[in-house]
Amino acid sequence: MSGDSTKSLGKGSSPPGPVPEGVIRLYSMRFCPFAERTRLVLKAKGIRHEIININLKNKPDWFFKKNPLGLVPVLEDSKGKVVYESVITCEYLDEAYPGKKLWPEDPYEKARQKMIFEAFTTIPPLETSFIRKRNTEDCSDLKENLCKEFSKLEEILANKKTTFFGGNSVSMTDYLIWPWFGLLEGLELTDCVDHTPKLKLWIAAMKKDPVAGPLLIKPKDRQNFFELYFKNSHEACDYGL
Amino acid sequence: MSGDSTKSLGKGSSPPGPVPEGVIRLYSMRFCPFAERTRLVLKAKGIRHEIININLKNKPDWFFKKNPLGLVPVLEDSKGKVVYESVITCEYLDEAYPGKKLWPEDPYEKARQKMIFEAFTTIPPLETSFIRKRNTEDCSDLKENLCKEFSKLEEILANKKTTFFGGNSVSMTDYLIWPWFGLLEGLELTDCVDHTPKLKLWIAAMKKDPVAGPLLIKPKDRQNFFELYFKNSHEACDYGL
Repeated sequence: MSGDSTKSLGKGSSPPGPVPEGVIRLYSMRFCPFAERTRLVLKAKGIRHEIININLKNKPDWFFKKNPLGLVPVLEDSKGKVVYESVITCEYLDEAYPGKKLWPEDPYEKARQKMIFEAFTTIPPLETSFIRKRNTEDCSDLKENLCKEFSKLEEILANKKTTFFGGNSVSMTDYLIWPWFGLLEGLELTDCVDHTPKLKLWIAAMKKDPVAGPLLIKPKDRQNFFELYFKNSHEACDYGL
Repeated sequence: MSGDSTKSLGKGSSPPGPVPEGVIRLYSMRFCPFAERTRLVLKAKGIRHEIININLKNKPDWFFKKNPLGLVPVLEDSKGKVVYESVITCEYLDEAYPGKKLWPEDPYEKARQKMIFEAFTTIPPLETSFIRKRNTEDCSDLKENLCKEFSKLEEILANKKTTFFGGNSVSMTDYLIWPWFGLLEGLELTDCVDHTPKLKLWIAAMKKDPVAGPLLIKPKDRQNFFELYFKNSHEACDYGL
């Protein structure tokens, strides 16, 4: 389970060799919240894996053969099976590998968790807009919308009366949505959860989770990464290494 | 399995009584492609169900208690379990009910089908824009984009060398994407598949499918429905009854 903090491969790099037997490879990028989903699931299930980071600002040509969309995360195994799209990779790992099941086994409980996840899907585009505009435009409308969306999640937690979105222990929904909360501090958006005490408690609990906690990136590092990333710097994805 | 062609319930209607034991209820709308997904899965799996159509242009207040978003499809069973969001309803039915499994059992084959489905997800918003604009604006750009998206699906079918998206018989992906192809004739968009012969053959095969075929709506009826719907007519959802 190595490679998490290795330098990214960019244009002109040699394609990596075949995936060793008994290991699954993740093409990732250290600061990507979508790839973080897959990293969380790999760790939570204790799946032996290796990570190859991709320079998303200077992508290698060979990477488009893995995923024509050129996006991370991408999984690849020793038999050449390739899976991409973050939610699909997480569900695939949960189904294909033994260990703790992260989606509930009961179809109705699973459907309920997926409905909660649906309620979350408005949040990533709002945060992305905020990241792009915050240094040049007034973002009060965006922040207001984000607060409204957080209120919906607060209501869900209040109705469920549990610490996590799937119950009293971490499960798939928590891992799928967590990366966009792990970056609130780096975006100086923590005041957006001032009105949502249960969501705040959930964030605190996720920070203590033995899987999610260690993947947390220091707010200052996150900020410096974003600055380079939106300048289209080829150095962004390797910031801090 | 009745109620498919009954008049819709609108504002001021009495909420329907409890769901009979052994039956699942679908809140639907006859012309809604999202609800059609769920109707296809119910029929394909032979699940005993009843349908209650909702007037989406004049929604009953009680309907928001079933789904706070006020959208169809919504499933409800005799125990009060409620599931909404079209893809979630289809996956729920596939997992919770016996009969032919519509997603492949093999996790990798399932992930592959889901990746194909992801490639399709750009199409519904393009068709919706086309429906809204076609009578008042130039839509040649939209049509061009649609043709490009169809080419991606053509390539998938060409690579798979199968009639359907999951193989040589109909499966989940086909049902999830079919409703947006069943309405091409009503939108006078069939020329968009002139350059995609394999997709055209798939459309012909789906029209002959014993589940999908009978749900097909006559192009003229579809057009008349759209006309009323975008005038916000309360009569739209009951057109033709």
